[in-house]
Amino acid sequence: MNMKRRDFITSVAASGGSAYAAMVALGLMEQPAAARPTKFQLSKNARGTRVIILGAGLAGMASAYELNKAGYQCTLLEARPRAGGRCWTLRGGDQVTDTDGVTQTASFAKGQYFNPGPARIPQHHVTLDYCRELGVPLEAFTNLNRQAYFYNENAGPLSSQKVRARSATFDMYGYISELLAKAVNQSALDDTLSAEDKERLVSFLRSWGALNSNLQYTGSSRRGYDVQAQGAGTASGQFAPPYDLTSLLQLGFSPAGDFGYDQQMMMFQPVGGMDQIARAFERQVGKQIRFESKVEEIRKTTEGVRVVYRDRTGVERQIVGDYCICTIPLPVLATIPSDFSPQMQEAIASVAYAVTGKIGLQFSRRFWEEDEDLYGGITNTNQQITQIWYPSYGYGGRKGVIVGYYNFGNIAASVGNLTPADRQALALAQGGKIHSQYTTHFETAVSIYWSKIPYNLGGWASYTTSVREQYYPTLNQPDGNIYLAGEHLSYLTGWMAGALESARLVTSNINQRSA
Amino acid sequence: MNMKRRDFITSVAASGGSAYAAMVALGLMEQPAAARPTKFQLSKNARGTRVIILGAGLAGMASAYELNKAGYQCTLLEARPRAGGRCWTLRGGDQVTDTDGVTQTASFAKGQYFNPGPARIPQHHVTLDYCRELGVPLEAFTNLNRQAYFYNENAGPLSSQKVRARSATFDMYGYISELLAKAVNQSALDDTLSAEDKERLVSFLRSWGALNSNLQYTGSSRRGYDVQAQGAGTASGQFAPPYDLTSLLQLGFSPAGDFGYDQQMMMFQPVGGMDQIARAFERQVGKQIRFESKVEEIRKTTEGVRVVYRDRTGVERQIVGDYCICTIPLPVLATIPSDFSPQMQEAIASVAYAVTGKIGLQFSRRFWEEDEDLYGGITNTNQQITQIWYPSYGYGGRKGVIVGYYNFGNIAASVGNLTPADRQALALAQGGKIHSQYTTHFETAVSIYWSKIPYNLGGWASYTTSVREQYYPTLNQPDGNIYLAGEHLSYLTGWMAGALESARLVTSNINQRSA
Repeated sequence: MNMKRRDFITSVAASGGSAYAAMVALGLMEQPAAARPTKFQLSKNARGTRVIILGAGLAGMASAYELNKAGYQCTLLEARPRAGGRCWTLRGGDQVTDTDGVTQTASFAKGQYFNPGPARIPQHHVTLDYCRELGVPLEAFTNLNRQAYFYNENAGPLSSQKVRARSATFDMYGYISELLAKAVNQSALDDTLSAEDKERLVSFLRSWGALNSNLQYTGSSRRGYDVQAQGAGTASGQFAPPYDLTSLLQLGFSPAGDFGYDQQMMMFQPVGGMDQIARAFERQVGKQIRFESKVEEIRKTTEGVRVVYRDRTGVERQIVGDYCICTIPLPVLATIPSDFSPQMQEAIASVAYAVTGKIGLQFSRRFWEEDEDLYGGITNTNQQITQIWYPSYGYGGRKGVIVGYYNFGNIAASVGNLTPADRQALALAQGGKIHSQYTTHFETAVSIYWSKIPYNLGGWASYTTSVREQYYPTLNQPDGNIYLAGEHLSYLTGWMAGALESARLVTSNINQRSA
Repeated sequence: MNMKRRDFITSVAASGGSAYAAMVALGLMEQPAAARPTKFQLSKNARGTRVIILGAGLAGMASAYELNKAGYQCTLLEARPRAGGRCWTLRGGDQVTDTDGVTQTASFAKGQYFNPGPARIPQHHVTLDYCRELGVPLEAFTNLNRQAYFYNENAGPLSSQKVRARSATFDMYGYISELLAKAVNQSALDDTLSAEDKERLVSFLRSWGALNSNLQYTGSSRRGYDVQAQGAGTASGQFAPPYDLTSLLQLGFSPAGDFGYDQQMMMFQPVGGMDQIARAFERQVGKQIRFESKVEEIRKTTEGVRVVYRDRTGVERQIVGDYCICTIPLPVLATIPSDFSPQMQEAIASVAYAVTGKIGLQFSRRFWEEDEDLYGGITNTNQQITQIWYPSYGYGGRKGVIVGYYNFGNIAASVGNLTPADRQALALAQGGKIHSQYTTHFETAVSIYWSKIPYNLGGWASYTTSVREQYYPTLNQPDGNIYLAGEHLSYLTGWMAGALESARLVTSNINQRSA
């Protein structure tokens, strides 16, 4: 069968509940099967049908790429002088001007970069298929590093301490195991567990929690040899006694940060910066992009669509086509005069976007690697900086760029509304509590607050259940010959894969209708 | 302070219990501190003291590298025509002849390789410090991939099924959470937990186990959207119902494979093959290595040591020196005539070595990536192949080399004692149950059984507690002017770091005594 299991299952499942039940009975649901890879291809040739694509981000470029293969004639209008949208990498010399008119110029060293937008790719996303198809080299992104820290303030006895993720996590697993083994052996769960289950469960817990023969957790080397490292000669290694359960519970840490399906290891990034994906698409469709072309009107016509835009010289122009794929983020689209139906206009105005920001901090020395044996990964804190990301590239080099904060919601707003200089000061002060080396090794910073980035005005579509129910179906329907596309037209909001899957869906729909 | 925390702690701890207690009181034990990096340097200059080093593996080459810095005159005798020992990478054209005289020639494609020995590096090992010092580029090694499988036979209802690691793991976490929350709320653990602890623990379990508001585990997206992937338009995603607890317990899987301190993520490998570390040392000390020089006698003299060896032309030669560092693996050393004391001879003969083997299988297509969204990582099975490792390099490429088995003990012996052709057949048959694509895409294989590799005769030193107590102290003492070094003289047996730490320790001891 010429599709991946997930597509096969989807099509069978869509065919009715009995097929699904049959599959469960056959054990297919339990057995992720091997199949030949999907290669997406629009089925019908278009013989020159004209498609106007608004936005040369991933959704727009992937749409053009797929439509080109099927003989469509595409034109992309892009407001910025660059393609890629949020699939973006900042290097030395790059400039960012926000909606307040404040300009920052990145002065990262050669070879150093910062991804202000998407920065990691799960294995099961179509993004990796496009990387393969377009020849984008990949490397691992470190989303889980047991060597990283939890650092929480006002959180009990472990407040304001660098608690190793490994120590907190495996201590907690030890206590959970000890407590559950105890409950099981005291017959507290006899109504739930058979004698055989009880025996197997206790055996599992003993191994999983590193319990001793009395089924007690008294620490384990899993928490790390912080007292004496294992080494040569007499260095047999010594680990510190475990944190006590009460302190761990008060710390309020969560070892589940990488448990989400989209956050589980392994994860990947393109070698050299996330924009390598954008560059790869641009190599395919770049000649069709009109840069610095700001859309001013989106109109329906009897034959299709008409778009008015202002070109880089300030001249107002228009372009007509048979279809339009509009990938403009909804907060921006809401400001553009259009012929959208009232229902569509309301839907466009009703979707909230994630409030989020990041800062890239360059340091003269990789103290996290050299002093702390920490190569990539994420430290979590209840300070406003929320997360510190150590770079997943350039290991063992001299300089390095840390993501000094990645925050969300009200916290992101309060930090993002500061000046760049004040954001930097905040990142250095809060991060400096965790890494004292910040003070002596900091060199330069660039920060991004997505709500203030022109042509985005937000991070990504952030649907509540009710907004998803009420407005999402409308957004997914064409309005005349105009189709919306982008991560906001998917259940993979905030992911590049959402934009790419949306491009595939919308181009398929146009292909079905037009060709 | 000019050392890493672990060294600082070690030296303070060694100074007596009161200092250690003081550190605990100060909270230092809870707080992995930042310090300037260790740079190892022998303290005294030797002014030409001659050191004969037996074996140009990592222990031997690192010893020469450090001794050279301090003015020693080193000569390395290496039985093989190559340096590196077990730090070894096989590429197309490389030959391996075992102690039965059976020769295999690797015919991997250009760019493909197989590490038959060490294949991963934890972050906290000195190995990474040497990579930095010697300029060896690093990349991530995937030791944990939630997309990999557990595949066990004769293990209850889930027997002979490809059970995703993520599904089994997060289902199990869900059940553990549900059961413990139930026991807590039924007051089964009131003698252990305060009311506040109970409340916090249940809250933790709800989040960690993905329980619903009734504190039940009914499945979660963490187990993967195997029924319908999340995507664009209406593809909201659907996950399969969870495995039942009884079946999971009977499956006998363990999600703790990456829990050991030396196995936790992140882990690393050199770009281009593990032997890049050996090559980096060889660039420093290669001119001092006499290749194809087989040690035949190790003698103590009044001034130091005398070693008899046979050179590549078959001529017997001897070399004299002030000191000898002998890194020859113990099963080999036991066969070489020497002046070692009876106590040392007994110790050398008493240490068992790990019985272990690996096979590298090249496939014409990366079906694990293309069909199964699996980029690196390890599948576990209770078949004789024990593990399948997917490559952590060359993502998105055409061909790829899988480690088709990595096994231990009696299983490794029964597989290792087969002919290479039969080992290959076994790996393909058993691995083919997990990946049906094996049949159509297999190209070529090379297998290594360490017990039959000349100059090794085993995997690594495998100490029992009693052997460690009885013989290890003797092995660590110099016998006259002869010092043993290698992973077997460490608590990091089986790791390259054991060899490197041993080299640092032994060269320090010689430096203290000689200079």
